[in-house]
Amino acid sequence: MTGTVFDIGTARAVLAAQPFSVLIGAEITAFGDDAATLEIPIRPDLAQQFGFVHGGVLAYAADNAITYAAATALGPNVLTGGFTITYLRPATGLRLRAQARVTGSTRRQAVCSCEIYAVREDEQVLCAVAQGTARSVDREMSPADS
Amino acid sequence: MTGTVFDIGTARAVLAAQPFSVLIGAEITAFGDDAATLEIPIRPDLAQQFGFVHGGVLAYAADNAITYAAATALGPNVLTGGFTITYLRPATGLRLRAQARVTGSTRRQAVCSCEIYAVREDEQVLCAVAQGTARSVDREMSPADS
Amino acid sequence: MTGTVFDIGTARAVLAAQPFSVLIGAEITAFGDDAATLEIPIRPDLAQQFGFVHGGVLAYAADNAITYAAATALGPNVLTGGFTITYLRPATGLRLRAQARVTGSTRRQAVCSCEIYAVREDEQVLCAVAQGTARSVDREMSPADS
Amino acid sequence: MTGTVFDIGTARAVLAAQPFSVLIGAEITAFGDDAATLEIPIRPDLAQQFGFVHGGVLAYAADNAITYAAATALGPNVLTGGFTITYLRPATGLRLRAQARVTGSTRRQAVCSCEIYAVREDEQVLCAVAQGTARSVDREMSPADS
Repeated sequence: MTGTVFDIGTARAVLAAQPFSVLIGAEITAFGDDAATLEIPIRPDLAQQFGFVHGGVLAYAADNAITYAAATALGPNVLTGGFTITYLRPATGLRLRAQARVTGSTRRQAVCSCEIYAVREDEQVLCAVAQGTARSVDREMSPADS
Repeated sequence: MTGTVFDIGTARAVLAAQPFSVLIGAEITAFGDDAATLEIPIRPDLAQQFGFVHGGVLAYAADNAITYAAATALGPNVLTGGFTITYLRPATGLRLRAQARVTGSTRRQAVCSCEIYAVREDEQVLCAVAQGTARSVDREMSPADS
Repeated sequence: MTGTVFDIGTARAVLAAQPFSVLIGAEITAFGDDAATLEIPIRPDLAQQFGFVHGGVLAYAADNAITYAAATALGPNVLTGGFTITYLRPATGLRLRAQARVTGSTRRQAVCSCEIYAVREDEQVLCAVAQGTARSVDREMSPADS
Repeated sequence: MTGTVFDIGTARAVLAAQPFSVLIGAEITAFGDDAATLEIPIRPDLAQQFGFVHGGVLAYAADNAITYAAATALGPNVLTGGFTITYLRPATGLRLRAQARVTGSTRRQAVCSCEIYAVREDEQVLCAVAQGTARSVDREMSPADS
């Protein structure tokens, strides 16, 4: 993507190019100024055995929102190094909303925090909190490189 | 599940009752003795934009394998408190294999470590490492409780 | 401490009762409203081999600031479950400042984030970011319990 | 240290050059083969308010043991990117023992796990578990660089 402007349109195009994000049904609803928001309409097939959204969906949302937030600071070629997620409450409702922002960055690395909410009709409830890091890489990779 | 034996058959029944695990295609291939292994056949719709398995799939695998490993020590009613995942290499191949084991536990809490491998035809490559905690809870929950 | 008001004076008394905090020279400079700030004058004997403040001092500061922030939400009898720290830059200057705040909480658990700055004469530089959890416990513990 | 053999003698010399490690009283008791053990004689001035070893001391031990373990894989010029620590039990006894080993590594990065024990007269009790990452850097740094 080098040479193109990395705006919300480009961010959405990258998300649309991620088959797993399409499978989950993720959408980018905000992107820019050291922050990114990713939302997922809650569907029955995203649940665990008690009907709540599976923790793995919250973890996916944190991972991806953190990567997008980091990209607003470091550019599109970022690699997520890892993240930590703490679950506070089971998630149920209409949508999952992961709001990530850059807490601090150097030229090559960004640390981001992310809050994951379950959005109900008239409120949003904080369900998990995450922190992760991403590094800028020199170029894109493909499976042929591995 | 109180009163029933929590063996690999029960563990597989719980997994089959998680719609998101069914969507991902996860399987439990080992369960017991403070350890659990969860495997996922790699499919095109689990990928990110460069064709590797999406980090969110690895995070799901870590979350769930850690929960199952903890359940071998604490019993079936466990709640995952959170986890940390560090990515080492992009994942590509035939299957994803998440091997979790209990590192330490008290009567109510277990700390587990998890290694996530990409299994190719003749080798497995370590792609991520995770650590997480789970606590035993007094009873099962349903969305009606929240 | 049950029955007493848990204000900054009490918080400072608890810190003064921690021999390791006295050894490090930590001070509480803000406490209340879901947040706490802990500061440490930088001394030569807190350094690593290149003259920067040792990462272990930043980790101590994160651990303790997170615990104090959680106590503003949960009360004085809290137990830190663990934390994650990411280092951004080496720390050097006059003081270390760890600012923690509660990101989310339930009745029994609080998740806190913490930013650790190196304070120089005319600026503060973000050196590390942490996230941790604490739980309320029913009573204080002593080594005789273990 | 480029050009010298990085054995346990060199590792101990680096530790002796860390004023904070000297203040804490840390010792390296094993070093090599993707693993390192750091021990700390428990003293009254390392305690928190209930007489247990302060969590910050366990965090210091995890941080440093992880860095040394990573150095056995990556060489002496390593920078710890961060770590996660989970506390299981309060630490009391004669010595603290942090055993770290490399779980996985690439050419530039190592992920390490660490178990922190309280050593009593006839047993050792697991008190905390940690996971951290370190990267190799091209050269040593000094405060003059910052």
